[in-house]
Amino acid sequence: MSTEDSLRRAQSDNQSSINVRRNEIRQQKSSGASKSETDESAKAVNDLKVDKSSIKSQLKASISGEGSSAASKEDFRKAVENTLERHLFYIPSFEIYGGVAGLYDYGTPGCAVKSNVLAFWRQHFVREEEMEEIDCSCVTPEVVLKASGHVKKFTDLMVKDEKTGLFYRVDHLLKDHCKDKLKKDLSISAEKAAELKHLLAVLDDLSDEQLGTKFKEIVAPDTKNSFSDPEQFNLMFKTKIGPSRATKGYMRPETAQGIFVNFRKLYNCNGKKLPFATAQIGQAFRNEISPRQGLLRVREFTLAEIEHFVDPENKSHPKFSKVSKLEFLMFPRDEQLSGQSAKRICLGDAVSKGIVNNETLAYFIGRVYVFLTRLGIDEKRLRFRQHLENEMAHYAEDCWDAEIECSYGWVECVGIADRSAYDLRAHTDGSGVALVAQEKFAEPKEKEKHVITLNKEELGLAFKDIQKEVVKALEVMEEKEAMKMKAALESKGEAEFEVCTLEEPVVLIKKNMVSISKEIIKQHTRVFTPSVIEPSFGIGRIIYCLYEHSFYTRPSEAGDQQLNVFRFTPLVAPIKCTVFSLVQNHKYEQLVEQISTSLKAARISYKKDITGTSIGKKYARTDELGVPFAITVDSTTSVTIRERDSKEQIRVNVDDVAAVVKDLSEGCRTWTDISQRYKYPPLISAEWKQRIIKTIHLFLYIFFFATIVKLTVL
Amino acid sequence: MSTEDSLRRAQSDNQSSINVRRNEIRQQKSSGASKSETDESAKAVNDLKVDKSSIKSQLKASISGEGSSAASKEDFRKAVENTLERHLFYIPSFEIYGGVAGLYDYGTPGCAVKSNVLAFWRQHFVREEEMEEIDCSCVTPEVVLKASGHVKKFTDLMVKDEKTGLFYRVDHLLKDHCKDKLKKDLSISAEKAAELKHLLAVLDDLSDEQLGTKFKEIVAPDTKNSFSDPEQFNLMFKTKIGPSRATKGYMRPETAQGIFVNFRKLYNCNGKKLPFATAQIGQAFRNEISPRQGLLRVREFTLAEIEHFVDPENKSHPKFSKVSKLEFLMFPRDEQLSGQSAKRICLGDAVSKGIVNNETLAYFIGRVYVFLTRLGIDEKRLRFRQHLENEMAHYAEDCWDAEIECSYGWVECVGIADRSAYDLRAHTDGSGVALVAQEKFAEPKEKEKHVITLNKEELGLAFKDIQKEVVKALEVMEEKEAMKMKAALESKGEAEFEVCTLEEPVVLIKKNMVSISKEIIKQHTRVFTPSVIEPSFGIGRIIYCLYEHSFYTRPSEAGDQQLNVFRFTPLVAPIKCTVFSLVQNHKYEQLVEQISTSLKAARISYKKDITGTSIGKKYARTDELGVPFAITVDSTTSVTIRERDSKEQIRVNVDDVAAVVKDLSEGCRTWTDISQRYKYPPLISAEWKQRIIKTIHLFLYIFFFATIVKLTVL
Repeated sequence: MSTEDSLRRAQSDNQSSINVRRNEIRQQKSSGASKSETDESAKAVNDLKVDKSSIKSQLKASISGEGSSAASKEDFRKAVENTLERHLFYIPSFEIYGGVAGLYDYGTPGCAVKSNVLAFWRQHFVREEEMEEIDCSCVTPEVVLKASGHVKKFTDLMVKDEKTGLFYRVDHLLKDHCKDKLKKDLSISAEKAAELKHLLAVLDDLSDEQLGTKFKEIVAPDTKNSFSDPEQFNLMFKTKIGPSRATKGYMRPETAQGIFVNFRKLYNCNGKKLPFATAQIGQAFRNEISPRQGLLRVREFTLAEIEHFVDPENKSHPKFSKVSKLEFLMFPRDEQLSGQSAKRICLGDAVSKGIVNNETLAYFIGRVYVFLTRLGIDEKRLRFRQHLENEMAHYAEDCWDAEIECSYGWVECVGIADRSAYDLRAHTDGSGVALVAQEKFAEPKEKEKHVITLNKEELGLAFKDIQKEVVKALEVMEEKEAMKMKAALESKGEAEFEVCTLEEPVVLIKKNMVSISKEIIKQHTRVFTPSVIEPSFGIGRIIYCLYEHSFYTRPSEAGDQQLNVFRFTPLVAPIKCTVFSLVQNHKYEQLVEQISTSLKAARISYKKDITGTSIGKKYARTDELGVPFAITVDSTTSVTIRERDSKEQIRVNVDDVAAVVKDLSEGCRTWTDISQRYKYPPLISAEWKQRIIKTIHLFLYIFFFATIVKLTVL
Repeated sequence: MSTEDSLRRAQSDNQSSINVRRNEIRQQKSSGASKSETDESAKAVNDLKVDKSSIKSQLKASISGEGSSAASKEDFRKAVENTLERHLFYIPSFEIYGGVAGLYDYGTPGCAVKSNVLAFWRQHFVREEEMEEIDCSCVTPEVVLKASGHVKKFTDLMVKDEKTGLFYRVDHLLKDHCKDKLKKDLSISAEKAAELKHLLAVLDDLSDEQLGTKFKEIVAPDTKNSFSDPEQFNLMFKTKIGPSRATKGYMRPETAQGIFVNFRKLYNCNGKKLPFATAQIGQAFRNEISPRQGLLRVREFTLAEIEHFVDPENKSHPKFSKVSKLEFLMFPRDEQLSGQSAKRICLGDAVSKGIVNNETLAYFIGRVYVFLTRLGIDEKRLRFRQHLENEMAHYAEDCWDAEIECSYGWVECVGIADRSAYDLRAHTDGSGVALVAQEKFAEPKEKEKHVITLNKEELGLAFKDIQKEVVKALEVMEEKEAMKMKAALESKGEAEFEVCTLEEPVVLIKKNMVSISKEIIKQHTRVFTPSVIEPSFGIGRIIYCLYEHSFYTRPSEAGDQQLNVFRFTPLVAPIKCTVFSLVQNHKYEQLVEQISTSLKAARISYKKDITGTSIGKKYARTDELGVPFAITVDSTTSVTIRERDSKEQIRVNVDDVAAVVKDLSEGCRTWTDISQRYKYPPLISAEWKQRIIKTIHLFLYIFFFATIVKLTVL
């Protein structure tokens, strides 16, 4: 129990005690008790009142303590955001026109960080795991997103403030309201506080109906605003394709659907083998109701998604042993519901204890952990949270979010879900094209199979407009479902049947419409819909958290101000090194040019600065950009390289600079290696060293042959 | 004059002669001429008739010759497209749902080619020229695209086939109709043919009104279809931002506007210096009326654009000398209008003769030429075509398209335009934020300057709803414009004034609304709107042309079939090498794994194939993917590397394979270098060579010291 909880409980216990004592006094007075008796009781009440005021001030302090920590978080965020905006890491889009909430541009360093993160993603996932890659259209016709369920279900509940005309997300209002109550209202009971806290914990777990009810119970009566009734708002950007009015379309809300609809081609091209994975990096669009939280909740963003297709009967992973020993913060469902916090769990144990559903899902959790920490995410502020039952889609087997803690709290940055066969089935139903895989048996197997015969006339009469959808769904029905229908038709004469593609999915199939019989057949192959395991990365969110985790301040040399630093790893840093000249001087500037050329040839991103500003200011600027290494030309033969965080300097010969920085920025060598090696700077450059060694060897050869000749002649 | 033209002319000359002769005969007969006289004339007519039929059959042959060349082009295209689709270079989007015209996905090799092309683009332009980079939102609010002129002018003229309900682009119908007439109609005169050909040449130069008129004159009366009246269709995908109905938005039709609206921040961040350039790679969207031509005319595509901001008074380029000696096919305006064809011109001459407007524009033309030819575009099928006067936007100074010839004809792939100050001025007017640069004078200059005082009351009365836009535009009016207005107000009491942001841009300003006076001021700085030079690359089109230029067929070893090959340069190739084992054998497969690991470590993309198919089939598959090098494991110590186009093979030690392929695929060495070097395969690997040399050196040292010791002791 938190301090705050126990204080609230103490407060209400104290109030009950006071009430009890007061009753006592009243009873004593009415029963004509002695003064000493009533005095004692009165004293007890007074003592309790002293306690009460003490508890109240403690509670106030406890809450305001949280408040001040929130304020300091906001100060920190402002410092980070100011630095980012000043250097154009990001820019609110269309700012000269007043901007649009939830749209941001990336400037030069922002682009470089993004492209470094994506390059590493490709290396770490696509190349290492030998995945396919695909790049699909953003504009998507309605039929595809109807089948996937987005047209119907990709909504948020919103209300309109009837005075201002502004729209709000109901869950956000509810969340803010609960937090506000807990922070500012000292009078609420421990029970009420517990209720609000529970509501906060399970908010994501609520259905739209539940949300609407809670909103009307809790928020609406408490505020001065008058709100419209809650309504669902579809988060997809709507558009029309072509000049005819017929083709409705949307901007894709995720990249995944493009992979699913191409499954058949991808499977064939992969030699019809499972498992295989296809990756996609691209823009996705969500028409948020009222975006806030800066770069975290945006209307357009880069997603990197993987769809790993696997046999549902075998979700083991051949490389699981490579990650099974990893241990990090996990937050399983049970811990969340019982109010505990995340704890360190070994990934191998999580699978063997059944906390994580299967090896493949766990393998990706492990790979995501390695990916994020290598980028520079602080592993103490990274946890994997399991979705609650209702939070998860009904078809999902298991789902975990990689959450990163930043000034906004814990932020979902990567979702890793076992979506079962849902998506491929939905598009099989929607398109009438079977998205399935085959397994060939070594020996043919005998199996009972249903044969369905459709009476299209009856179906047509019964279903008219939706006849096509119903027929399609009946034709691709799974074995289990068919057997259930057969039983129902035989016992009741009718059966309920779900057609995913319909507005009202449940239809009633009657005995005269279909006949289902069983046959024993010899099967040479097993045909099945693969399961899909989907790790989905919000690249912008990861980058924003990376900015916060990388940011710190330190006093300037003179100690008169705080300087900002991003401790980007060389992998992520937008620029690997800067090149300065210590003073403005033609010879030094020539050297700066020479070093720049060698860096360009080695494909290392650099920035040169030959302005007259002081070296201190140059370092400050370069630290704010998170540049790990700064080269200062301060002589004509060797230069200084300074490491950003330790501020340590080494002296390196001009000819070696590019190679040293390349080794450092590609991670071949660490700063510690290099600084050890260059502690005593070499008197001669590597190039000259080579020449001298070659000369010695030449001399040795001559000497050797001369000796041989001498010996032979003599 | 083409053969076809002279035949048409001969045909009509022949007809006139026949007519003349017939008249003669008629006159002879009426004047009672002798039989010998009329016989001679009749014979002449008969001869002419023989000529006539000969001309006709020649004309037919000439046209059908073109037809058969068109047919062979189509066969070629089909072969290319089949190969591309089979290997998922591209996939028609949402194919299982019947697809959507103009939308395509890129599969694994297509993604790799695109990412290679973009990486080279970044290297060649962004890094080499030290540009800024930016990544802006695709979703764009209407206000931005109103200011840029897209809401009003980004349209195509279309008509509806009233029977089928399908929409067509008027210019496409007109083009097809003219081509059809020229191809199939033998009866049209040389003059009519010339007219149709001229129309084809200037089609892009026509305004919408002219197009509409020509369509009604030429196409509509000739076809069986009944068409609606031509109407303008805006090519932007429309959408709404947020739940409120207020904010209209579009998917950006180009990336450029994102750079313009950020000009002020980019300029400041660049130390307020000109020239500087900002680049952007990203998706753009155009809601084409009826997309055709496969990958060339699509509704969603990747653009790579550069906005180079420059002082309009100084468009020289410091690096122009680096490209001025280049000579390639250019197609200036005059040559197009006079019916000539493109010719080789030296870029330096093109600038000095005033064919290209300025050095900076020409510098980019040269850089684009180098970029395209390095990718593998055939320089004989690449030309730079200048825009005709009307084809170019009215504000543009000069504009050149890099056109690449493929089976569809000459295709515009890169536009390189000097757009003057138009874009920055449009957004200055639209936003009220001055997008300008400053030049500081060493000495202050005296200058006459206008001072404008607005009578806001009168303006408000006159312009009501549009008052804000008018005031904004008046306040940022340029010197020249203000002086013109001053003169008009003084002479006529009113002046026309253009406000770009309005639907009806021209408003009438009256004397009582503004007063303009002149002042002599001391200027320390010059404030001006920079010009912008914009190279804009349609990445998908470049890639498609590259596919066609890289494709060829050759007979299989057995000579029984034609095999397809893409001769991709190692730079572009989606996969740099394949690794096979000659036979299925555990030892060889282990070696395949070992080589794969070393390739992965060297970051070379590879594909392994350890299936049992024949080596010939493996080569065929790898050639179809355009893989330049194939490694075959056929012994345990050394392997064969085969080059795709020459089919030449060399033998390389296992330990050296990765290094050799890395050198080849990064362009450090050519195949000729390597094959010379490995003509006589080394007996020992490079590693062992090093070891032996080291041992010899050690031995020499020992020998040297032993000798010294011996000499000293003795």
